[in-house]
This record gives sequence, C-alpha cells and structure tokens, in this order.
Amino acid sequence: MDQNRELFSQHLIEALPYIRKFYSKTIVIKYGGAAMTNEDLKQQFCRDIVLLDYVGMRPIVVHGGGPQVTSLMKRLGKETEFIDGLRVTDKETIDIAEMVLTGMVGKEIVARINLEGGRAVGLSGKDGRLIRAEKKMHRRPSDPDHELDIGYVGEVKSVEPQILNTLEKDGFIPVISTVGMGDDGCAYNINADTAAGEIARALRAERLVLLTDTPGVMRDRNDPSSLVSSMSAREARSMIAEGSAEGGMIPKLSACLTALGGGVRKAHIIDGRMPHSVLVELFSDTGIGTQVFPEP
Amino acid sequence: MDQNRELFSQHLIEALPYIRKFYSKTIVIKYGGAAMTNEDLKQQFCRDIVLLDYVGMRPIVVHGGGPQVTSLMKRLGKETEFIDGLRVTDKETIDIAEMVLTGMVGKEIVARINLEGGRAVGLSGKDGRLIRAEKKMHRRPSDPDHELDIGYVGEVKSVEPQILNTLEKDGFIPVISTVGMGDDGCAYNINADTAAGEIARALRAERLVLLTDTPGVMRDRNDPSSLVSSMSAREARSMIAEGSAEGGMIPKLSACLTALGGGVRKAHIIDGRMPHSVLVELFSDTGIGTQVFPEP
Amino acid sequence: MDQNRELFSQHLIEALPYIRKFYSKTIVIKYGGAAMTNEDLKQQFCRDIVLLDYVGMRPIVVHGGGPQVTSLMKRLGKETEFIDGLRVTDKETIDIAEMVLTGMVGKEIVARINLEGGRAVGLSGKDGRLIRAEKKMHRRPSDPDHELDIGYVGEVKSVEPQILNTLEKDGFIPVISTVGMGDDGCAYNINADTAAGEIARALRAERLVLLTDTPGVMRDRNDPSSLVSSMSAREARSMIAEGSAEGGMIPKLSACLTALGGGVRKAHIIDGRMPHSVLVELFSDTGIGTQVFPEP
Amino acid sequence: MDQNRELFSQHLIEALPYIRKFYSKTIVIKYGGAAMTNEDLKQQFCRDIVLLDYVGMRPIVVHGGGPQVTSLMKRLGKETEFIDGLRVTDKETIDIAEMVLTGMVGKEIVARINLEGGRAVGLSGKDGRLIRAEKKMHRRPSDPDHELDIGYVGEVKSVEPQILNTLEKDGFIPVISTVGMGDDGCAYNINADTAAGEIARALRAERLVLLTDTPGVMRDRNDPSSLVSSMSAREARSMIAEGSAEGGMIPKLSACLTALGGGVRKAHIIDGRMPHSVLVELFSDTGIGTQVFPEP
Amino acid sequence: MDQNRELFSQHLIEALPYIRKFYSKTIVIKYGGAAMTNEDLKQQFCRDIVLLDYVGMRPIVVHGGGPQVTSLMKRLGKETEFIDGLRVTDKETIDIAEMVLTGMVGKEIVARINLEGGRAVGLSGKDGRLIRAEKKMHRRPSDPDHELDIGYVGEVKSVEPQILNTLEKDGFIPVISTVGMGDDGCAYNINADTAAGEIARALRAERLVLLTDTPGVMRDRNDPSSLVSSMSAREARSMIAEGSAEGGMIPKLSACLTALGGGVRKAHIIDGRMPHSVLVELFSDTGIGTQVFPEP
Amino acid sequence: MDQNRELFSQHLIEALPYIRKFYSKTIVIKYGGAAMTNEDLKQQFCRDIVLLDYVGMRPIVVHGGGPQVTSLMKRLGKETEFIDGLRVTDKETIDIAEMVLTGMVGKEIVARINLEGGRAVGLSGKDGRLIRAEKKMHRRPSDPDHELDIGYVGEVKSVEPQILNTLEKDGFIPVISTVGMGDDGCAYNINADTAAGEIARALRAERLVLLTDTPGVMRDRNDPSSLVSSMSAREARSMIAEGSAEGGMIPKLSACLTALGGGVRKAHIIDGRMPHSVLVELFSDTGIGTQVFPEP
Repeated sequence: MDQNRELFSQHLIEALPYIRKFYSKTIVIKYGGAAMTNEDLKQQFCRDIVLLDYVGMRPIVVHGGGPQVTSLMKRLGKETEFIDGLRVTDKETIDIAEMVLTGMVGKEIVARINLEGGRAVGLSGKDGRLIRAEKKMHRRPSDPDHELDIGYVGEVKSVEPQILNTLEKDGFIPVISTVGMGDDGCAYNINADTAAGEIARALRAERLVLLTDTPGVMRDRNDPSSLVSSMSAREARSMIAEGSAEGGMIPKLSACLTALGGGVRKAHIIDGRMPHSVLVELFSDTGIGTQVFPEP
Repeated sequence: MDQNRELFSQHLIEALPYIRKFYSKTIVIKYGGAAMTNEDLKQQFCRDIVLLDYVGMRPIVVHGGGPQVTSLMKRLGKETEFIDGLRVTDKETIDIAEMVLTGMVGKEIVARINLEGGRAVGLSGKDGRLIRAEKKMHRRPSDPDHELDIGYVGEVKSVEPQILNTLEKDGFIPVISTVGMGDDGCAYNINADTAAGEIARALRAERLVLLTDTPGVMRDRNDPSSLVSSMSAREARSMIAEGSAEGGMIPKLSACLTALGGGVRKAHIIDGRMPHSVLVELFSDTGIGTQVFPEP
Repeated sequence: MDQNRELFSQHLIEALPYIRKFYSKTIVIKYGGAAMTNEDLKQQFCRDIVLLDYVGMRPIVVHGGGPQVTSLMKRLGKETEFIDGLRVTDKETIDIAEMVLTGMVGKEIVARINLEGGRAVGLSGKDGRLIRAEKKMHRRPSDPDHELDIGYVGEVKSVEPQILNTLEKDGFIPVISTVGMGDDGCAYNINADTAAGEIARALRAERLVLLTDTPGVMRDRNDPSSLVSSMSAREARSMIAEGSAEGGMIPKLSACLTALGGGVRKAHIIDGRMPHSVLVELFSDTGIGTQVFPEP
Repeated sequence: MDQNRELFSQHLIEALPYIRKFYSKTIVIKYGGAAMTNEDLKQQFCRDIVLLDYVGMRPIVVHGGGPQVTSLMKRLGKETEFIDGLRVTDKETIDIAEMVLTGMVGKEIVARINLEGGRAVGLSGKDGRLIRAEKKMHRRPSDPDHELDIGYVGEVKSVEPQILNTLEKDGFIPVISTVGMGDDGCAYNINADTAAGEIARALRAERLVLLTDTPGVMRDRNDPSSLVSSMSAREARSMIAEGSAEGGMIPKLSACLTALGGGVRKAHIIDGRMPHSVLVELFSDTGIGTQVFPEP
Repeated sequence: MDQNRELFSQHLIEALPYIRKFYSKTIVIKYGGAAMTNEDLKQQFCRDIVLLDYVGMRPIVVHGGGPQVTSLMKRLGKETEFIDGLRVTDKETIDIAEMVLTGMVGKEIVARINLEGGRAVGLSGKDGRLIRAEKKMHRRPSDPDHELDIGYVGEVKSVEPQILNTLEKDGFIPVISTVGMGDDGCAYNINADTAAGEIARALRAERLVLLTDTPGVMRDRNDPSSLVSSMSAREARSMIAEGSAEGGMIPKLSACLTALGGGVRKAHIIDGRMPHSVLVELFSDTGIGTQVFPEP
Repeated sequence: MDQNRELFSQHLIEALPYIRKFYSKTIVIKYGGAAMTNEDLKQQFCRDIVLLDYVGMRPIVVHGGGPQVTSLMKRLGKETEFIDGLRVTDKETIDIAEMVLTGMVGKEIVARINLEGGRAVGLSGKDGRLIRAEKKMHRRPSDPDHELDIGYVGEVKSVEPQILNTLEKDGFIPVISTVGMGDDGCAYNINADTAAGEIARALRAERLVLLTDTPGVMRDRNDPSSLVSSMSAREARSMIAEGSAEGGMIPKLSACLTALGGGVRKAHIIDGRMPHSVLVELFSDTGIGTQVFPEP
C-alpha cells in the first residue's frame, strides 16, 4: 500500500504540470476507428473527455462515421460505389450521410458525454456556418490529367470558429460531424482527419490528437518497434513526399501539418484501441504514439 | 408616389414602437404545416427570421416533421402504426425519427437561414441537455383506466435553457428539433407545440408564436368570420375544458397556457399560410390570428 | 385590408435593414426653416426624433433661430444691420442672440421632445466646452482685399464632443444651439449648417441630415424635376466652385463636405416641409432630396 | 517662514481628512446674492468650484437670478407686479425669466467655470426632465382662505436626477437654472433655495451649502455674536414654527430640512460675501456660518 | 510498462475529480514538526505547495517555530521559563520570538517556495491587521481559580482576511507567522494550530490540513492500527471532553472544530513525516491520517 | 481669526492642485536617520503616510536599520568589521541582519501605521520575489585592481514590482526592508537608498523622496545657505563625477538618477528632522530640501 501511495504521488507530480499547462486550452480530438465501435472504449473515451473538461481544458470532438453511413444505405437498397477508395456521393447519398452523421452518430456521442456529466452539443458544418465547403474534383492516379466528378465530396473552403468559441466559453463540449455547407446550401462530405486539422488551425488550438487503430506512425507497418515517437513537421513532410508513410497515415500526417502551420503547438497520432490513450498521451512525460512538433 | 410615401411613414410609425419593445427580447416560434412544405413560404419564413434577428430580437425556431419521418420509414419498409393519432414508436422508429428531424429537417432550416444571412445552429433536446424527457404512457379514451405503452413517446421533464442563452448572447439563432433525452440517454419523441410552450416558459420569453394551417382559433371551424382575435388565458382554459376547441387546437392552446403560466407576455396562434404572417403579427397594431393574454 | 397587410410587410422588409444598420449610430440633424415654424411639422419632427431614439439610434439636433433673434431685438428697439446677408453682431446683439437661442428656441425643442417621451438636453457651445469659436472677419465681394469686423460672428475653432458622447451613452438627446465660446469666454454666433457639419465630423457620425425649404439640390431652382437625388463629394465641390449652386445651398453643401471629409458615411439635404421627411429619407430605398456620398 | 511651514502643515493635516471624506461625494451649492454680483467673488467662487472638482468632489451649482430678470423686463417696458413679495408671472414674464436664467445667467457661470479649467454644463429643469413642476397657488396672509393665481410660479413635483448622475460620472459640473417643466411643457419659476434642497434630496448628496448675504442664522439679526453655528433639524423646525427666524431664512431653513429628510448628511448656510467661504466651511474643523445636522 | 500506464491512468482518473473540486479553492495548511526540520521533507513540502498553486488551488501556509525561538534565546543567554508547557513570554522574549518567526523561519519558507517556482509572501499578524490578539491569562490545572499572567501570550480576537484575499487573487502564496497584534501595537505569541483554525474559518476555506508527527488521531497512542481515519465534529468534541485524546492532539482537534464551525468543508490531521502527505491526502479516495467532517 | 481663515484658504488653494495631481500616484519614500529614532518624528511620519493614503496617494516606505543590526550583533557577542565603511557580512551576519530588519524594524513601522489607521504590509526582497540580488564585490580605493569579497552584500539584479501593484490596488501600504534574494535563496544586504531608487524606477513612480539628516544637498556642508533647492539630473551627475557632493550624498544622488532614468517625474532629498517634511515638500509650491528633475 505504501508503495502504491508513493507511485500515486509520483504520478501526480508527473501529471500536475501538464494539467496546469493545458488549463483553459483547446484540444481538438479526432475520434474514430475501434474507439468508436467497442462499447468499453466508447464509454472510457467519453468519460475521459468529461475529465478533461472537469480540469478546465476545452476538448473538441471531431468524428466521422463511414461504416454507419454504408449500413443505412444498404438498408435503403442503395449500392455504394467507391473510386480509388473515395465514396461516389450523389445527392441521395449525401442526404443519407448528413442524416446519419449528424442525426445519429453525433447525437450518440453527445448523449454519452452528457450521461458522464458533461454538456455536449452536436454540430455539423452548417451550424453557425462552421465549415464552408467547395466541391472537390478527383484525379485518378491512373489518369492524373483529367478531373473526375465524384459528387458531393468537398474540401474545406473556410472555418468560421465563432460558434466553437461561444460554446467553449460557457463550458459546452462541441461534437462535430464533418459535413460542410456549400455556397448552394447543400451538404458536402469532408474527410474527418482533414476537418479536424483545419478546425485546430482555425482555433490555434493547443493540441490536435488523432485516434487511429495503429500504435502511431511506424517506419515498418509490421514492426511495432519501428514506432516513431517524435518527429518534426519537416520529417512528416518528407515522409509524405517520399511515400514512406503507409496509405492511411497520409491524411493524418497532412492534418497534423495543417494544424502546426496554423500555430497549434503539437499534434499527436495515438492508438485509440488502448484504454485512456488520450489521458496518457496528454498528461505523462513519455506519452504513447507519435507526436509531431513544429519546426523551430 | 407621394401617397406611397405617406403610407410608408405611417407604417413605420406603426411598427417602430414594436421594434423597440421587442429589442433583445426572445420570441419562440413553432414552425410547421404549410409554411414548412411550400417553397415560397419556406424562403419567406427564413428571411423573416433573419430580419427579426437583424433588428435585435432573439428568435428561436422550434419545428416538428412528422411527414418526413413517415416518408423515410416507408422507404425502409417499416409500417407506421398509429393509436388514437399517436405514432407507436419502437426503438427503430425513434432512431429514424431522431435522424430525420435533427439530421435532415433541422439542418435544412439551418442552411436556409444561413443563406439569408443569419447564423443558425440546429439543436436536439440532447444538445446541452436542453430537453430532458420521460416516457409518456397513453390512456385510450375507450379504456381510460389502463395505461398503454406506445414506446419512445415522451413528455418534457425539464428544460435546461442555458445553451439557448449561450447561443442568443452571441447572436446565433437556435433551431430546435423536439427530440428529448431520457435518463437512459435514449431519444424520446415530443410534441412540437408542447415543447415550444415549455421552452418559451423556461426562457420567460416575450412571445410564443405558433404557426398553423388555419386563420387562428375559430368558434366555428368552417366560418372564417368566427375567428377569435383575442382571448384571455381563462377563456382558453374554458375552451379546452368544454371541448369547444377543435382537436388540433387543443395542444396549441395548452402550449399557450404553459407559456403564459411561466411569465411569457403573450402567445399567438397565426396562419402560417399567409406570407410574412410573423412580421404582420408582431409589428402591426391589429395583428392577425388569435392572441392569448395572461389573466390580469 | 389584405392588400394593406401586404404593403405593410413590404414596407417593413424595406425598412428593417436600415433600422438595423443605424442601430446605435449617431445621426446629426440640422433643424430649421418651415419645419421649425409650422406647428404640425414641429410636432411631427419631435415625434420622429423620439422614434429614432426608440429604435436605438442616436439623433442629435442642431438648430438655428435667426427670426426669433430679430424679433426680440425689435422689441428691444434695436436695429439689425446686415452686411452681405451677415448680421453685424455687437456685444448687445450676441447677448440677445445667445439668450434667445439657448434660453428660448432650444428649450422649446427640448420640452416638445420630452413631451413625446424622449429625454432631451439643451446645450450651447459653451456647455462642456462643446464648440470653441474664434472671430471671423468678413471680406466683402466688392472689396475682397480688406477684412471687415462684423463683431461677434465666429467660426468653429474646435469641437470637443465628449459631452455629446456622455449624453448619448445614457440615452439623452442633445439639442444644440450654435453659439460658440471664444477664448475670452464670450459667445460667438456660428452658422448652424456649418456647426452641424463640424459636429458630425467630430463624432464621425453615420449621417448628417440638413432640413431645408426646398426639395433638395436642384440644377434649375425653378424646375422641381431638376432635383439631383445623388451626387459625389467631388460633384458637390465642383458645384460650389462653379457657382452653379444657388446661394442658400452653398453653406449646406460645404457642411456636407466637412462631414464627409471626417468620415461621415453620407450627408443628406432634404425637404423639411414634407411630413416625416427624416424617416422616409433614412429608412426607404429611394429616399427623397439629395444625398452626397464620399469619393470612393 | 518656518512658522508659516508649520501653519501650512497644520492646515493640511486639518483639511486632508475632509478632502478624503468628500472624495467622489456630491455637494449641492445654492449660489446667489453678493457672490453672484461682485466680480472678485464671482471669480473666486468659480475657481473654488473647480478646485472641489479637482480633488475628486462632485459639486453641483444651483442658481437664481431675480435681479437680472427684472432688468430685462424693464428694458422691454414690462412692469413687474409683486404680491406678498412673489412675482406675478404671466406667460410673457415666465418666457423672459426662462430666457434670462438659462440663456444668460447660467451660461455666464458655465463660461467662467470653463475658463478656470472645469467643464460645466448649464441645465434648466426641462433638460433631461430634471425638475417637473406644478402650479403653486398663493394664499395671502391677509386672506388665507382663498387661493390666488399668480401665474407661472411652480413648486417641485419631482426631480429626475439621472441627467446629473450622467454628467457627474464623466466629470462635468452641472449648473442649474431653477425653471421647472409643467405637464403642458411650459416653464414654471421655482424658488432656487427650494430647488437646491430638492435636488440634494433626490441625489442623497453629502452636503447642501446655501450662500447668503448674512453670516448665517442669527438669533438677533442685528447682533453678529448671536450667530448659531450648529443646530439640529429639530431646532430648525422649531425656529420656523415659532417665527423666530427672520423672513429670508425661512425658505433656506426649509430647504435644509428637505435635504436632511432625504438623507443628506449636513446642510450649511454660509456667508457668500466672505471670500472662499465654501472651502473654509467644507475643509476646516470650525467652519463658518450655520450647519444644520439631522436628528440622531 | 503497460501496467505502469494503466496505473498511471487509474491514478489520474482517481485524482482528476479532486483537482477539479479544489480549483480556485483555499486550503489552509498548518506546517510544523519534522516536516519543518528534515531537509528532504522541507523541499518536498514546498514543491507540493507550488504544485497545488500550479493547478489552480490557493494554498495558505501557517507555521510555528518554537525550537528556533528557544535556540536564539539561548545564544542571547536568556533562560526560557515554561509553566504547564506554556512559554512565559516577557517583552524581550516576544521581541525575539517575533523576530525569529517572521524574520527568519517565515522568510526561509518564502525563499524555498520561490525557488520551486511559486511566489510566496511572508506575513505576520500585524501585516494588513491580519490577526488582532488580546492577552490570554493562564489558569493552572492545580489552581484553576486564579489567573496567572504569563506575559505576551495572546488569543485571537479577530482575523481580517482581506490581505489574504488580495494576495490569493493575484496568485501569491501567503506564509503566515502566528504573531498577533495587540491594541497597543505590541506583538503577542499565538498557538499556530489555533491560528490556522481561525484563519481557515475567517476565509471559509475549503480545507484545513494540520501536519503532525503522528499518523493522525489514534485511540491508542502506541498502536498504529488504532488510527481513526474519519470522525465527525461531534466525535471530536467528545474526545476532547472525555480526555481520550492525547495532549498534543487537543489544540489540533479544537482547531478543526473552529474551522468546521465556520463553514470549512473538512479538516485533516495528517502525518507530516510521510513524503507528499498533503498531495496524497487531498487527491486520493482513501487519504491518510484522520479527517474530521461537520455534523450533517 | 479672520486672518487665520484667510491663511487657511490660501494654504488650501496652494495644496489642492498637488493633491489632485498626486491622486492615485505612487510615491516611494526612503525612511531613515533621525526620523526613525526620535519618538515624535516616528509618530508624525507614520501619521503623514496615513494621510497621503487617505487622500488617494499610494505611498511606499523603504527603510534601512543599520544601527539596530549592530546592536543585536553586539548582544550576540559578534564583532562587526567594516572595510571602507562597508559592513563585512558573513552568513551569520546576514541572517541576523535579515531577522532584525524584516522581523523587528519593519514590523514596528507596520504596527505604527496600522495604529494610525492605515493598513501596512511588511515585505523583504524575498516576498513575491520583489528584489533579486547578486553578490557585489568591493574594490578598495587604495587597490582598485582587485575585487574583495565582503560576503553577503548585494546589488539589485532586478525588481519584480507585481506584489507592490497587488497591494496598492487594494489599499495596502507596503513597508520594505532592503534585503534581496540571491539565486541560491540566500538573503543579501542592499543599500536602502539604492533599493528605493530601483523600486521607484521599476514602478515608474511619480516621486522618489529620500529623508536625510541634513537640509538637502549643500554646496558647502557647513553653510545652510548653500542649499541647492533645485537641480537637473545633469547637474547631479556632474556633482558626483567631480566629487563635489559630500560622501553621504553620493548614494542618494545616484538613487535619484536611477529613478529619473526610469521615468520618475522628480526626486527629492529632504530633511527628515523637520516635522511633516514629507507633506510640506509634496504639497507646497516652494517645498524644502533639494529636488532633482530630469533633463528636458
């Protein structure tokens, strides 16, 4: 027991300076993958978000929800077509996607956070004009000279962060579905990692944290010991350019670079499958996963 | 032209004192019926909401969306069962209803208001714990001694209006889908008139305005000249008790009484089919429709 | 009636954006001519000022009162001498002028505004050191090389607007008699159009509105259809230089230029004989009279 | 010189606690008599007012001006009729009185204070609705059963002190001409001592100071040694009731009682013929003149 | 390592709610005994105080220093006389005590906290009139009918906490030597436990923590397993009345009761010999030592 | 008596503008010499400080206390060694000095000010990290090439004035013992004149006032008529360079130059033996002693 006490006070002494450092600071967290499907991980994640809020931090949750969209489409007898891994999104598909993401996936997270004692508010990019989107044309690797119209897939044109400031100031926790609003008022589907990076940038957040289903950035995908625990923005940029990052990591590294370019202090790619990974990453000296820091 | 100028200044002189009176005051507007299906009326309504916001008022839109829910259920091959006009709402139904109301109907209103120059934010009763609901058992008129479980149909347990204050303070226009949150975190369907009355009460709003597809409260449903242009809360209460109000008016009159009982200054039941009915009702001496005022 | 309702809402939709635009903005209004002698116009003018105040604008009234001064001088058996249309103002004359303007004409406007529900405060240029004046020498057109001393006639040396800010902040409506204070503490008579322009400039007011007894600036004084409804500062300057403006318009156009040069957004010369001319000019799309806008 | 230094520091040590005590406190000063006619006393008085303002006090000057009114009436060939010492005030007379008091006498005080470095603002009872008046009927001592209409002579119906608070807050010194505004918008003449008492009461001022042309309240008018240097409100009331105060003192003692009844801490009747009498009264232990203190 | 991570997050999840709960709350800590003599404990204590400050709490340190006083007295060749364990305190003794406590012991704690990154300010009861004292007469147990004068030993007459609020508000950490100020301006020696209780009471602190050289309150002084980990104020009062608390605990339990009586939420008696005892007590579920809670 | 009244008002009129000028301004006063040993002067000084505080100024007292240190050292049987007039300060000596200055001399001033009605707080350079010190090596005039270690004698490395701002803002009067804190946490002795100059500089105080036991700066030490009543910073610098100032004046003139260099408006060297010298110097036109003003 005495040993436990000693560990307890050691852990506290380790964590307290971080708790102080993050006081009233904004932390943007991209939530997805296993942490969003496993029941235990869901509950732990929502509880951790409430704890961050409790000790005075300002967490913002950004989430996707591709599998849930696909599932409803199936029930409606609608085929999902993918080109180069991108969902071809006609008007009916985007309406379903918007409805599922903002009306179901987001609201579930909101309800869970509320049950844990927080006060969450679900938002889409339309709310308060948070995310203005514009159509994104696709260029196939096999035919890079031509643009291909894949429908209501958008890229971020601008982020108007005032609604987030308004909510944070009064202690609400924003939960954002990454659907943008086009100039015509229509919804556009936006990649959730990209959106999280843009939001962190627009807020000059203290941290961007991306949950993945891997331990972090690895030099060799199959070798856990090849985990890169810390890298500079320059290294991240090289990794993308050289193609040495595996596919799924590219939008995540790009999101980190977007955030850092806008004054975010550090970006983290961590393993969402590990319980309480957000707490351990933010409050311990060693952390887990990969942190990307800006060039000095 | 000179005559027009004179009318113009007369109209202004009529409207200006109301504009002043409502400055920074909250107006809760229940939106539904024809005004929510006709394209022209939709656009006029959203533009009027933005005008109210422009001149310093704080409009709050509360909406339903039964037809849209029924429509998606049909597409999913799910039968809708009604008992005494109430939708029997199993878990799957409430999930669909929540998704449709908050993820589709609400977001469309938000987008329209934004395109007209406002900054709207869509909310369900879960967001910021706005509406806590509890299960409502049904008693059939034919068998009033037994309670019948019709599923996820709820009544308002409490309203936590802080999220509305937070949004209003910074100039956002709340657009509320009337889905409540149960103690278990589940969604419950709430009658939109009732919810609007409770929200107006919780905010001690200046006004509650309910849009209908009739000219207002009429003594004889088929005789437009029987429109009651003004009535006291006492008269409204009698009308409900005596059964002299037609069916659809009962929840509306009840909502008015709820609001007045909480300090709302006046409640209005007006014809949403008439263009700009909200403006004419609020800013002219004569008004349209029926106004209900509190007992002195 | 329905047609009237439609006109009503059209007029409102026309006026509301202006009401919003002018919220908490300062409007300096030079009051004089027929609007200050006709009983009906007096009352309408004061009521309109109170309406502007009601909807959140900050009106400031600047007035002259030459005829009233002349009248008292006659009763005191004192001859009024004019040189080139300027009153020769000896010590006794300026004392009478100050007394009449600030002690009678101004107080009548104050009382009328108060009776209509506003809270006006009468000021001269001495109060709160509002207008510092210095002696203005006259050069006769017939002998422009020599300066002629015409007594206590002054030009504006500086405007200290703090007293106006103090009053506006707490909802009082300033009513200003254009008597300036010299370095010796004596009163100096100041042209009221000029003073209004300088005050609008010092406050960076939103608008300067000058009431006249003509429809506005006309290319041909005898042809109402020659009214210039909009002109740039450059055009106004040319008109003065070329002598194409009739005599009475020159100080008014100069006052507009003074105001625009100090950041006032627009200046208006309107017909004070028309009822509610201020309301129609400020709140309608077409306006009346002549507006002068700054060079882009 | 050393003796002088010692006196200097003694005087300071005497005065400093009063300076502290009066910091940001309102002092209402009724100005009149010799102090308003002698050139040296005028200048000293205005300079003292500026000094009070300098050290953080909030002086308010209330003045009369009967002789100046009479003088203009003479020039206009209008006879002044007095009944029992009260001026019979027809419409023409009140117009002249208002014009002289607010447009001439008040503005001269304003200008002098401004030249000494203060920032004064002249007000009548109309400005900001400061003094609402109602007609006062006269009862002749010789025929006390009948009321006699002596015209536009009023008594104070109410004082709306907000304009004074507004001016004081921003460092302006109010200079008040005691003309009240009737419900018809007309001016009414008000006794200046009475008005000063009512204003002090409405503001819950710290002090009311009345300048007279006698050393203070004397038991024997012809015996300076009979000066009463301190008396309670009760004693003042007896003196009035018993008729032991000489005529001119009665409205002054009444004004003191009005003020004390409204929470003013002390009222002073002092000799305005003595240079700097206000400073000596407020800042020395012994004072001069008569102070009236509230019942314990 | 993974096990460590899990412990780490468990410990954090245990501590975070306390950290939140104590945010911006005042914690009064009586510092003394071994923790004030052992070099390691001194440094750990001061570091812990800085950590509390870091995470937004408001620690206040109250200290004694009897041994240091005795030591200087010896060097000055002055005998210390004790009666019933109380130091007989003549004028010379109190001067030495004041000098040692405020000029040496307190300043050392201040310097250590500053070196750890905090900003401490040393205070005696004279500073800002923090502790007003009055002479305390002694009654010998052997002769309880007579009062014995033991010199400048005082009890707390009143605490004026404003200086503490002033310092806390701006982030300074008060370090208080328990010397009170008598009405004659002289210093009086005050028991440090008692003073800590009174200060906690005057501030309505969240917690009072007393460091001792025992594990806490024990039923049997020689049996560590007899430690009482939690007791009510009522139980503490009985223990004192029944004499079942050992001698040194009586002033400590009394201090706890004083604090609880003034609204302090809990009082703790803990073992200052254990490293980081303050952190473990405040931030863990189980705590160490004895906590005293108010009657419900 | 009338003459006295006249003198009284003259003195007030002389002093009031200074009182206004110094309102809410910081005055740093170096206290020492006879004014700190004579009982009457002590009391008058502390009363004057309270008066300054009363009328809204912000006095800060900086004091030395060499004789008291020497006296305790003697009692402890410790020889004091001086080299070139500087006290050789080993660890034991600095401990005694700190204890005497902060624990005895400072606390006596604090208690006296409190008894006069002020609220003083004693500080050393350690408190709130007010004065950071670094070791000062000595160079003997006889051997200027070598540095001599004379122990814990320091010079000011930096002043962190926040604790002073914190105290002043809430109306506390800081009383500062000039002991600095080294990087090792140890105390260092600092010359009190020098410290006062540095503190005035760090605060950009309005005034620095140094009390001495001479009439001020004199060209001939033995001729009182050679007193320099006013000199520029340039002249002060020359006087030091030319050696024309007598020994004791050099650190005082240097302190004045330090203060003026940091934006202090004027520095005064005055005779602390004269009663109320601070009041006379600050509030009269002529002053006493020597004032040093910055180069234009």
